[in-house]
Amino acid sequence: MTCTLGDLGLRFGCVVQGDPGVVIDGVGTLARAQRGQITFLANPRYRRLLADTRAAAVIMTPDDAEDFPAPALLTDNPYLIYARVAALLAPAMAQPGGVSPAAVVDPTAEVAADAWVGPGAVVEAGARIGPRTFIGPGSIIGQNARLEADCRLVARVVVCAGVRIGERVILHPGVVLGSDGFGIAQDGQAWVKVPQLGGLTIGSDVEIGANTTIDRGAIEDTVIGDGVKLDNQIQIGHNVRIGEHTVIAGCTGVSGSAVIGARCMIGGMVGIAGHLEICDDTVITGQTLVSHSLRKPGVYSSALPLDEARQWRRNSARFRQLDSLARKVKALGRAAGNDDGEQKDE
Amino acid sequence: MTCTLGDLGLRFGCVVQGDPGVVIDGVGTLARAQRGQITFLANPRYRRLLADTRAAAVIMTPDDAEDFPAPALLTDNPYLIYARVAALLAPAMAQPGGVSPAAVVDPTAEVAADAWVGPGAVVEAGARIGPRTFIGPGSIIGQNARLEADCRLVARVVVCAGVRIGERVILHPGVVLGSDGFGIAQDGQAWVKVPQLGGLTIGSDVEIGANTTIDRGAIEDTVIGDGVKLDNQIQIGHNVRIGEHTVIAGCTGVSGSAVIGARCMIGGMVGIAGHLEICDDTVITGQTLVSHSLRKPGVYSSALPLDEARQWRRNSARFRQLDSLARKVKALGRAAGNDDGEQKDE
Amino acid sequence: MTCTLGDLGLRFGCVVQGDPGVVIDGVGTLARAQRGQITFLANPRYRRLLADTRAAAVIMTPDDAEDFPAPALLTDNPYLIYARVAALLAPAMAQPGGVSPAAVVDPTAEVAADAWVGPGAVVEAGARIGPRTFIGPGSIIGQNARLEADCRLVARVVVCAGVRIGERVILHPGVVLGSDGFGIAQDGQAWVKVPQLGGLTIGSDVEIGANTTIDRGAIEDTVIGDGVKLDNQIQIGHNVRIGEHTVIAGCTGVSGSAVIGARCMIGGMVGIAGHLEICDDTVITGQTLVSHSLRKPGVYSSALPLDEARQWRRNSARFRQLDSLARKVKALGRAAGNDDGEQKDE
Repeated sequence: MTCTLGDLGLRFGCVVQGDPGVVIDGVGTLARAQRGQITFLANPRYRRLLADTRAAAVIMTPDDAEDFPAPALLTDNPYLIYARVAALLAPAMAQPGGVSPAAVVDPTAEVAADAWVGPGAVVEAGARIGPRTFIGPGSIIGQNARLEADCRLVARVVVCAGVRIGERVILHPGVVLGSDGFGIAQDGQAWVKVPQLGGLTIGSDVEIGANTTIDRGAIEDTVIGDGVKLDNQIQIGHNVRIGEHTVIAGCTGVSGSAVIGARCMIGGMVGIAGHLEICDDTVITGQTLVSHSLRKPGVYSSALPLDEARQWRRNSARFRQLDSLARKVKALGRAAGNDDGEQKDE
Repeated sequence: MTCTLGDLGLRFGCVVQGDPGVVIDGVGTLARAQRGQITFLANPRYRRLLADTRAAAVIMTPDDAEDFPAPALLTDNPYLIYARVAALLAPAMAQPGGVSPAAVVDPTAEVAADAWVGPGAVVEAGARIGPRTFIGPGSIIGQNARLEADCRLVARVVVCAGVRIGERVILHPGVVLGSDGFGIAQDGQAWVKVPQLGGLTIGSDVEIGANTTIDRGAIEDTVIGDGVKLDNQIQIGHNVRIGEHTVIAGCTGVSGSAVIGARCMIGGMVGIAGHLEICDDTVITGQTLVSHSLRKPGVYSSALPLDEARQWRRNSARFRQLDSLARKVKALGRAAGNDDGEQKDE
Repeated sequence: MTCTLGDLGLRFGCVVQGDPGVVIDGVGTLARAQRGQITFLANPRYRRLLADTRAAAVIMTPDDAEDFPAPALLTDNPYLIYARVAALLAPAMAQPGGVSPAAVVDPTAEVAADAWVGPGAVVEAGARIGPRTFIGPGSIIGQNARLEADCRLVARVVVCAGVRIGERVILHPGVVLGSDGFGIAQDGQAWVKVPQLGGLTIGSDVEIGANTTIDRGAIEDTVIGDGVKLDNQIQIGHNVRIGEHTVIAGCTGVSGSAVIGARCMIGGMVGIAGHLEICDDTVITGQTLVSHSLRKPGVYSSALPLDEARQWRRNSARFRQLDSLARKVKALGRAAGNDDGEQKDE
């Protein structure tokens, strides 16, 4: 698709800097965009690339555009406007409805006439597939699972029995929804499986990355709120509840029965212990261990920054003496007559 | 299924508190159980919910039941009794044997008459599937692999060539068993693949969570003992041996040739280095790095608790000066005349 | 296959110690090799097993062989020579070309006559499969994806639309290549998907472990260099570039737009933040958090060693007071007249 910079300004409500007649036919990066491509500047660390860009126009903030001599689309949120421009210029391929002859659909399943079921997919008894929903090749939809309209299961997704999924949900390859949670009860030296009888409810406008897994509840449902975005290789345990518009980066693990609020931003490889609560609007940086409830919004961290290994070993050996070090300092302070100051933070 | 509280007491050897004629037809949580549902109290943090529960009865310890005025099933291990009651009230669906016409079974494979092979499943040459074993849709059973009786591969499990699996093993979607280990030998700047010629042996009564992977051995077998329970998204490297009844929570990684004892409890997102030994009955808390052998049973940790990010940055910057800080304290102690005390732990 | 120790010495350019006529018909471990099997000694922690080995011969360094009385193959790189010997003695099974009648291949796809496409595999429109490439059962090759010669997709691999893969690439079960990256733009409280329009290019001689995921680029390609070896359950974000012959152990996560140099060695469960650079020949130990660029080759760490939990809790509680502890030490030093020394490292 092709349009002018002026068209984009009108459509997305942005001021145009420079010639509104510049023709735009695609997107590119600041470093490598070609004639006809529009790009964006959102991360300040790429500002140095502005001077040499050959892009036809740049989506940027008015402040960044001040000294920029070339065409631009001005907005306070360049990345958002870029997302919309890119979606406009590169629309998703239309997909005709229908069931592949190489799919296996149980006669008691209900598949909307304009839904699509790809080759190698299996739709089990009682499942319901909503209008325009795309069941990619190799996907498995378990008994009585239900997907609403306009979902896209890219390929090889597993939706276990009884899972309920809202509208416009995107599931990437390898996702597993509604697997049994890790419920085991100790019986002497051995462990007995606890039946996982709950379900899994996924809201609308949720996107879930490749090979992410979400367990069904033990008794009640695991619940993923509207607008939640999960990256790849995340593990969500049974009974977890995640509030709307929370986003979680890759490789993070959430243990069973944790309750995560709305609009949280959780970094990659974070470990969240079970049976705790994280309040709305909490930010957690990468590789943090969350071992207790967080009841106050804020930014939380626990991972140490790296160091050259030799220096690291020296410091981490000292870490094992930290309590005794603190006691020595206290004793020295007392000997030096600082008792009051000392007691303050013990 | 429906029964009375008295029936449950008899069947599972528990004292009944209150009316043994109370009718039970399902399970629920303390917070939301309805008439006719039985629940349990195992985690003390939910004790506050007892007062308002509408459950027909509660499985609990005699101590917890002392002030509880309603019907109860008394036991020292409420979670175990709950597991058994839930399994009784919600039995697994019976599955008729047979091979789906949409499965591909090599003529040299042996599938028990009462086993089930689902649509889209592939059973390769020489594989053997035991009695009542369920090969879920989209699963792949490699050449000469062997599964004993009563296993359940929920869906889309890959069992690579030659892997041997015991009885009553449950494998959740996305599990990969017997993939090649990460064996590479350096050749100048490049790396050469080391053939992975060993196998993988899984004991009986093992359960393995969604998207967990276990590599085959390099020369001998990787071995998972009887009764081992693995959560989702765990990685087990080649040549690893895990002793019976050990349980591991999600996202943990075990490097090649590690040997883990029996009855260990390993938390989530733990990293276990290669070529080490962990003795029986060891407990490792979440996100710990195990970099050397553990020869004494106990509880081990290494992950720091989180803090508000600003305070965290201050402390972690100081961590990089920890060795020098310790030297200063030593010098101060010496100057203050504490030499003997100081030398003790250096 | 069977040969003599002398044959192996000639073929791989190694000096033979002892009888060159010893017959070798397989490989084994130092601890359990039987008559006819050759083994190797590469890791010094297994040297103690030499005395009792029953192996027909050992591949080892001249130094290690000095006091070893039995047949040996001498080399400076025993593990590399072992890899070659093992590949010679246990060659991969020959695979006849052809497309399984249970595969679904689009008529516009091009599959080389001697390529193999297994049962349950799907090859979409415009895809190209090179000579002798093996598409294992249940694999999905997206539209216009392209695989060169001699690749091996073991089973159930997903290659998304347009991904390009070089020669001799090995992909283990559950691998997902070219899934959408985690691109989302904030729109008030909600998040909008950013179209992921770039591709993914994988070089030649790459091996990728089970359930590893690599996202396609947002605008340009994600690029994996020649000879890169990735273990299981690794996550590589969009726009990442990894230089040739870099190796990464299991469960590591690389955030979007990170650039990793050539010949790096990255341990397991490492977290690499986005938009940073790691220079060539960098070594990162397990569970490290890489939060800024590394511009100097070296060995880097950040994970603390574990401790017995009670002692750990004491030390980690003190960690939260570390900044205040450092200030106290400074004050004590100042009081003791050490101001100059103090100022040096603040």
